[in-house]
Amino acid sequence: MIGCDCEVCRSADPRDQRLRSSIYVETPECSWVVDTGPDFRTQALRQNIRRLDAVVFTHSHTDHIMGFDDLRRFSYARGSMPVYASAATMRDLERVFEFAFNGLNRFPGYLQPEPHLVTGPFTLGGTVIVPLPVPHGNATVNGYLFTRDGVALAAYLSDASGVPDAIAQQISGVKILIIDALRPKPHPTHLSVAGALAVAARVRPDTTYFTHIAHELPQAAEAGLPSDTYVAYDGLTLSL
Amino acid sequence: MIGCDCEVCRSADPRDQRLRSSIYVETPECSWVVDTGPDFRTQALRQNIRRLDAVVFTHSHTDHIMGFDDLRRFSYARGSMPVYASAATMRDLERVFEFAFNGLNRFPGYLQPEPHLVTGPFTLGGTVIVPLPVPHGNATVNGYLFTRDGVALAAYLSDASGVPDAIAQQISGVKILIIDALRPKPHPTHLSVAGALAVAARVRPDTTYFTHIAHELPQAAEAGLPSDTYVAYDGLTLSL
Repeated sequence: MIGCDCEVCRSADPRDQRLRSSIYVETPECSWVVDTGPDFRTQALRQNIRRLDAVVFTHSHTDHIMGFDDLRRFSYARGSMPVYASAATMRDLERVFEFAFNGLNRFPGYLQPEPHLVTGPFTLGGTVIVPLPVPHGNATVNGYLFTRDGVALAAYLSDASGVPDAIAQQISGVKILIIDALRPKPHPTHLSVAGALAVAARVRPDTTYFTHIAHELPQAAEAGLPSDTYVAYDGLTLSL
Repeated sequence: MIGCDCEVCRSADPRDQRLRSSIYVETPECSWVVDTGPDFRTQALRQNIRRLDAVVFTHSHTDHIMGFDDLRRFSYARGSMPVYASAATMRDLERVFEFAFNGLNRFPGYLQPEPHLVTGPFTLGGTVIVPLPVPHGNATVNGYLFTRDGVALAAYLSDASGVPDAIAQQISGVKILIIDALRPKPHPTHLSVAGALAVAARVRPDTTYFTHIAHELPQAAEAGLPSDTYVAYDGLTLSL
């Protein structure tokens, strides 16, 4: 955190230096990113992202959308950029990035978003993507379940203060659960470590990864977690 | 640039890796930043910025404002964050960061902007800051002249496709001119290297620094510039 001298902010473990939460998903057919926070350009450069066919949004808070315009590089390569978001999130994207959505773009290199409202499951290539509406404080944000050939591969719940039973049942037994675990101490809009572990106990995934981690949770805390539970870090790659 | 294999993007000179343009100004009385692009948090961490008393905006394009919310760290420390911008830029800030300006912030850690419309010279501590309206394609953006004790110390023109004579005269003889020099090739909204040199020839500063540099202009190009002209790079510190 800016201007902080805590143990995690001064940590020698490079995994303790975190940019904003996001995932990049690569399949045989196509690739997409979930959220474009302010760090999107830095993340795309660091991971050497060469292809991006769509962007999927969880919600419109600044740490998840403010890098949207840097999609222009991929939009230009494709001619447009399919954007998947809930109606509320799309409204915010249209307000914030008015210049991109208003159709008045004059330069060929400008971002050309192609809006797709998420109202239920949708497909990208051979992947079925199921929105998982969960509370994030007073807001409702979309987590997403990714299934291929009828197999529930991964659920991504980056911002959640709780997970309703219907959602926990819907993703029950998923191979990988990636879940908000901000810090040990409770927070009004995010799950704590204990809260995330309690969700994992209900979902019973093969493996759990914590994400959206604050500087109050060191990478080293992983040693104290159950053996199927990990603290995710920037650049972590999972193959399924 | 994302997905680019050009000589500059693959350069071994770390100065060829550039984040979005911004300057941090430290004076005996107070400190401020000009613009908060998406990289603001990364830049503040990298330069170990501990104090920030105000933010001054040139214009509202995404590469200059999308890190605005990360000012909350400094806003919290002060109780609010004075924001200096033209009326047009302030309107865009209010639209994009509606949650910060609408006065409904519920959490103490939220950004509390304190808007100040820039309509002419203003002071921050002992520095007089003079807005310099310049064309940036079809838009007009503010450069800024910083003077102390009647001495014109630095002019910052980060985004300009030209510099009107009145402005060139206004900053004539400034110690340091920091000026847009996107690349060798002309661009509709930015000065080229030749364009920036032509402005410098009219302004006659002691020293000129190029900024807002694209991947078409390597750091090594500095060797071919006049001896009083430099290619700025991320983290460059100037003492006046």
